[in-house]
Amino acid sequence: MRHLLSAADLSESEARSILDVAEEMHEVQRRPIKKLPALRGRTIINMFFEDSTRTRTSFEIAGKWMSADTINVSGKGSSVSKGESLRDTLLTLDAMGVDAFVIRHASSGAVAQAAGWVRASVINAGDGQHEHPTQALLDAYTMRQHFRDNKLSDSFVGKRIAIVGDLLHSRVVRSNVLLQDTLGGQVTLVAPPTLLPSGVDAWGVRVTQDLDEALESADIVMMLRVQRERMAGGFFPTAREYAAGYGLTAERLARLKPTAAILHPGPMNRGVEISSEAADAANSRVLDQVSAGVAVRMSVLYHLLGGEGGN
Amino acid sequence: MRHLLSAADLSESEARSILDVAEEMHEVQRRPIKKLPALRGRTIINMFFEDSTRTRTSFEIAGKWMSADTINVSGKGSSVSKGESLRDTLLTLDAMGVDAFVIRHASSGAVAQAAGWVRASVINAGDGQHEHPTQALLDAYTMRQHFRDNKLSDSFVGKRIAIVGDLLHSRVVRSNVLLQDTLGGQVTLVAPPTLLPSGVDAWGVRVTQDLDEALESADIVMMLRVQRERMAGGFFPTAREYAAGYGLTAERLARLKPTAAILHPGPMNRGVEISSEAADAANSRVLDQVSAGVAVRMSVLYHLLGGEGGN
Amino acid sequence: MRHLLSAADLSESEARSILDVAEEMHEVQRRPIKKLPALRGRTIINMFFEDSTRTRTSFEIAGKWMSADTINVSGKGSSVSKGESLRDTLLTLDAMGVDAFVIRHASSGAVAQAAGWVRASVINAGDGQHEHPTQALLDAYTMRQHFRDNKLSDSFVGKRIAIVGDLLHSRVVRSNVLLQDTLGGQVTLVAPPTLLPSGVDAWGVRVTQDLDEALESADIVMMLRVQRERMAGGFFPTAREYAAGYGLTAERLARLKPTAAILHPGPMNRGVEISSEAADAANSRVLDQVSAGVAVRMSVLYHLLGGEGGN
Repeated sequence: MRHLLSAADLSESEARSILDVAEEMHEVQRRPIKKLPALRGRTIINMFFEDSTRTRTSFEIAGKWMSADTINVSGKGSSVSKGESLRDTLLTLDAMGVDAFVIRHASSGAVAQAAGWVRASVINAGDGQHEHPTQALLDAYTMRQHFRDNKLSDSFVGKRIAIVGDLLHSRVVRSNVLLQDTLGGQVTLVAPPTLLPSGVDAWGVRVTQDLDEALESADIVMMLRVQRERMAGGFFPTAREYAAGYGLTAERLARLKPTAAILHPGPMNRGVEISSEAADAANSRVLDQVSAGVAVRMSVLYHLLGGEGGN
Repeated sequence: MRHLLSAADLSESEARSILDVAEEMHEVQRRPIKKLPALRGRTIINMFFEDSTRTRTSFEIAGKWMSADTINVSGKGSSVSKGESLRDTLLTLDAMGVDAFVIRHASSGAVAQAAGWVRASVINAGDGQHEHPTQALLDAYTMRQHFRDNKLSDSFVGKRIAIVGDLLHSRVVRSNVLLQDTLGGQVTLVAPPTLLPSGVDAWGVRVTQDLDEALESADIVMMLRVQRERMAGGFFPTAREYAAGYGLTAERLARLKPTAAILHPGPMNRGVEISSEAADAANSRVLDQVSAGVAVRMSVLYHLLGGEGGN
Repeated sequence: MRHLLSAADLSESEARSILDVAEEMHEVQRRPIKKLPALRGRTIINMFFEDSTRTRTSFEIAGKWMSADTINVSGKGSSVSKGESLRDTLLTLDAMGVDAFVIRHASSGAVAQAAGWVRASVINAGDGQHEHPTQALLDAYTMRQHFRDNKLSDSFVGKRIAIVGDLLHSRVVRSNVLLQDTLGGQVTLVAPPTLLPSGVDAWGVRVTQDLDEALESADIVMMLRVQRERMAGGFFPTAREYAAGYGLTAERLARLKPTAAILHPGPMNRGVEISSEAADAANSRVLDQVSAGVAVRMSVLYHLLGGEGGN
């Protein structure tokens, strides 16, 4: 593995290896002294052209706990804002001797393009409405832990995963669909017709508007953030109506299977796509996802940079 | 000690222990190699919802010299700005495995509230017009050094501390009053009537408008910053008149006791609350306060995070 | 050496020592594990009052690879923006126990002034239209490597260096002229009359408007960035006309000496001062300059802070 650009890049054994090493990293995360020497002398640039406290911090912590040097570069005030091309900016930083770029960018495909330019490893931390592979990996990690905690088989095969909400503007859904295609989970997508991506029929997963039916059999319920700005765009009428049709309300929560887990990539809009009852329920795994995020990113960094040779 | 939210939280022995350990840290600060292994593998998030170069940098240096991993998160561009609640933002970062949050927030009480939500330790780095306990500790540290340097008893009992200026908008004054209530210093507050907090009579300290009388017997003169924006708010008429009534002018400087120290939490408005003569006088301890700030914060971090068990 | 404020501060032996140690640092930069213990326990503040991703990142990487603690302070949101003087802000940070300030500031002369105030070492990372000495050093490093790679003598004496473009607004040109005055390179400046600094005649170097003649004999061609904003200011009519008169077009590229190197401090405006053909040519050393930047800055930091005594 040189880059992690898409969840589709991962073979089943690579995906499993990332999840397995993440379990060891999770052990480190629970220790009072959280530090491994594995990436000492490696340099990671977190390059976020869109703000994201949680993802940037998660990668920064992952890098620091592995003893890497981590450097933050934001889009604002960068050379790109002075008219330099993204290519020249990346080539410049690459020439300094960086080992990995963690990139978030507003344009779908920009991160994969970047990987074609540089010598360093590139990790896609979210590109437009396209992909966010480490999110899908941390989701899978969280699901697997949940299966085990509930004495279920830890295989994804036959598990039903409902992903609900704004599929149109989500990079999380695409990466989850691709990863579960590899791991064997059975994904159902639920969204109002205005929030379905075009071409979703070709994704090879079930698509429905019937949330209640989808929830009935779900082992995993993943609620996606709905940005209130979408209301102005006419994607849905009001937050209240959205919640009634596509939100995980207290009523719907009560009807889930007892072993079903609730996931949300955050940040949550309580009262819109998820009720506070659901967000804070005993089977909510939202904070476990965040915790898994650091462990999974440590594992990904280790898979990309941990070898002897380096870049 | 799990959190440091208010100067009132500290017993006398805890306050003394922080000051005593800070002396050892101050020794480290004077070495060419400024590094202790004490907090290796601990992670500290500096979360500043209000800009503050000096306080943020002081905490960041303190953490790094103790070998902790330090991560900066600013309010701008954080999930809070995307509509996530402060609680969810903190729970998210907490779930990553952070050991301490150093928080500055514009709302009085927000930091104490935060401490109720998270598993990590919380240090109040200034909340609204409420408290700033590490400032009061570094002030006390500086006073004690000054007493010793002037062959005075290093006890606070019987020492007269005049705190002068915009008491209404200051979090520094409240923390100093509370800490000196514990340590035994005798505080006199001096401010124009428009800049007195309501309820100041219940604070148990002397309040006067007569600056000259207060200065006469003061062992410590602490001048507070007056923001020029307050003029527009009608709190005082002009910078010149403010300086005449409540500034530490060159004339007033000349009439201080020879062993009196001048303190200011910074940033200073030279020519308003403090003259350049006073700011740069031999008995000005303003830069000693800054230096003490790092040592005191190292000590506070050590008291909160230095144990075996960790969070 | 205590500070590095101007390329003129360096004696020939100091300049050579910086370049020689940079070669050792360059070796480190090529290793998978990029880490030296030399500046462990030293603290470096990168204080950028103007945005600059590339220079700030280069210094930050250099510091981290030398094991120093590095702290970023931006001008925005700093105490300076709250009305504190630059002097008080620097004295405050200095009092914390910082070992070096790396400062970029919009005002020519501000950095040298800063050095007069503080106890720490100061490195000028670009002040106004004045100087940028580490850029001149990394340029010299790159030139020397180029001479060697082309089996030329590695002395600068007799080498012809053409510096072309917006000399008026450039801090790079001044530092290069001063450093080459010490090292022996023969500088020719080329610019339209509107972009010549006043007093350039006293610099002791050749000045011409004839780019083609200057390129004919050049061993080094250094193209300077032209900001498009200058068009509005009337300094030149259109990007197209600028390129025709003063750009390194594909045609001019073809007429360079085969051993001539192309340098550019970046960020590049492709199609204005430099064509993509020239930027990406085999004899373009633009990315080597960036790489050399880290090595040269490691060397400068080592020269200033690497001693036993410390500040």
